[in-house]
Amino acid sequence: MSEMLKTGATIGILGGGQLGRMLSVAASRLGFRTHVFEPGAHPPAADVAHRVTTAPYEDAAALGAFAADCDVITYEFENIPTAALDLLEPLRPIRPGREALRISQDRITEKDFLTGLGLRTAPYAAVDDAASLDAALAAVGVPAILKTRRFGYDGKGQSRLMAADDAPRAWADMAGSPAILEGFVDFHYEVSVIGARNTLGDVSCYDPGENVHRDGILHTTTVPSRLSANLRMDAVLLTAKILNALDYVGVMGVELFVTPQGLIVNEIAPRVHNSGHWTQNGCVIDQFEQHIRAVAGWPLGDGSRHADVVMENLIGDDMDLVPDLAKQRATALHLYGKAEVKAGRKMGHVNRIITAKP
Amino acid sequence: MSEMLKTGATIGILGGGQLGRMLSVAASRLGFRTHVFEPGAHPPAADVAHRVTTAPYEDAAALGAFAADCDVITYEFENIPTAALDLLEPLRPIRPGREALRISQDRITEKDFLTGLGLRTAPYAAVDDAASLDAALAAVGVPAILKTRRFGYDGKGQSRLMAADDAPRAWADMAGSPAILEGFVDFHYEVSVIGARNTLGDVSCYDPGENVHRDGILHTTTVPSRLSANLRMDAVLLTAKILNALDYVGVMGVELFVTPQGLIVNEIAPRVHNSGHWTQNGCVIDQFEQHIRAVAGWPLGDGSRHADVVMENLIGDDMDLVPDLAKQRATALHLYGKAEVKAGRKMGHVNRIITAKP
Repeated sequence: MSEMLKTGATIGILGGGQLGRMLSVAASRLGFRTHVFEPGAHPPAADVAHRVTTAPYEDAAALGAFAADCDVITYEFENIPTAALDLLEPLRPIRPGREALRISQDRITEKDFLTGLGLRTAPYAAVDDAASLDAALAAVGVPAILKTRRFGYDGKGQSRLMAADDAPRAWADMAGSPAILEGFVDFHYEVSVIGARNTLGDVSCYDPGENVHRDGILHTTTVPSRLSANLRMDAVLLTAKILNALDYVGVMGVELFVTPQGLIVNEIAPRVHNSGHWTQNGCVIDQFEQHIRAVAGWPLGDGSRHADVVMENLIGDDMDLVPDLAKQRATALHLYGKAEVKAGRKMGHVNRIITAKP
Repeated sequence: MSEMLKTGATIGILGGGQLGRMLSVAASRLGFRTHVFEPGAHPPAADVAHRVTTAPYEDAAALGAFAADCDVITYEFENIPTAALDLLEPLRPIRPGREALRISQDRITEKDFLTGLGLRTAPYAAVDDAASLDAALAAVGVPAILKTRRFGYDGKGQSRLMAADDAPRAWADMAGSPAILEGFVDFHYEVSVIGARNTLGDVSCYDPGENVHRDGILHTTTVPSRLSANLRMDAVLLTAKILNALDYVGVMGVELFVTPQGLIVNEIAPRVHNSGHWTQNGCVIDQFEQHIRAVAGWPLGDGSRHADVVMENLIGDDMDLVPDLAKQRATALHLYGKAEVKAGRKMGHVNRIITAKP
């Protein structure tokens, strides 16, 4: 095991959004400083970071200076350009490691990896042009979703096909990007497991939460989920299998479909995850601190759940609800400091404590 | 009522220690930025503040620029020089207000205020020279403690008198500062109430915690305390009386001695308080967010207690315990990022969850 990072050490965070912001806060709780690297101006994480570098991921000098200031580097999103990682990797440890990024940056690679572990996914096929879309449709069937292989999130870069006739429009939606056709899964509901693994190989998972999406964006996560005890165990063991296979260090979000035939993996995210925000008010150690503990070479913390919680995202105009939400009992607001409200933009979330557990 | 501060607004904090650090974190949770004003270099709060001004409290230009950048100003300690407050007050609202500072900056003024409200304090007398110490000893008796009227904290600027013979040494310890002689109170134990009041005049108090000191510094706070239901009600009502009398806005710590004759006020602190750190892991809304809500013109949050907690300070070499504490279940560490360990220096604290409440 590497040494435990000590008070005053600096954790570098690639990406300065709300996840980086909440990671910075968790790092401060353990006595660490953060240095955020973000191309965009005025990122939410800058408000609580010790240092901020504003530079594109192509700026080798800025990346080098960033690495020199950090003891370890982590990230809040998986779509970091490979060239930037190539430059940083010889300079400082990157946690979670490159293998997790390589796999999660490409939907085909990710599904191949998961099925290779013996886990089930939706039926899928690679689509590189209009002709291969026809072949994929023949194999996968309709309804189906065509998605870009890379750089997709929150429903962006996706197109639904209800019939084979939809193929030309769907392919046009990809704008020439290599894609994956995924068959629909007939599922009861979706859950996600927030799992963590540290440099010792210890694994800890939070109680799975049940997710409801709206317009392709996470709307609520509820704990406990409706999972039976058996399925909950399956979900946790499957997550541990993924973490171990990647020699993973950090927190990962694993989205699962619950079907009559058991659990199907929807996708994995090598980072803290929106569906884990409930842990801020449901656990002694939340997902952000758990991630920081892991990447800092610390023991994992106690992630056992002490309350039933419903997390609800505040998207765009939901910010108008803040004055009312601020008055409600058993309600914790978490706002991201984004001055400009945009439709579909994640502005904050609210954790409602339903009952405290004895 | 003033307007609720909105996402992106800036809260100025005078003082950059651990209280300012945890106030900054709480402010970020509600979408605010903080600007910390602190004379010393590398203050703990700088790690999580959006801006930091490093300047003495005598620097009028720096104070003016600081005020211009802030929407409202608060502070993490009560001993801010009056001249700095005189300069800031016309520029931006200072919360809690000047009256709370005027009273808590001088132990005689504070005790006069409390007794004026009909509350009980230790017997006390002003001491301005060796002769008035003799008169005070005659009135108050021994054992007693001589304290400087101003700028004392954590047992600093204090001298015990076990007999009248101790008077010359005790007076010498004051180094010429005006002082107060306080009689000993024969108490069972000490509790403190963390109370909050907002711009609407709403008052909310946390469950009183029971404090144990070691070497004049808070060692542990335990909730629940041993207070009977009646005394708990007395403690909360007395705190509300103080808050209302001052038209107070923010969080205040009220230290109380529990005696056979009821509650005696030890001292008040017009700020978040070390004995309220347990709220970080025992309540949905902790004392830091409650303070930020109040000074930002927000409704107060839900401060009801959902767990039994023991808070323990990590002082000086206690930092050696961190690797072990990091492994313990139901244990939340809070470190302040202070690189240099010194004897008697508050380096962090730990909140242990004893049982979650149903």
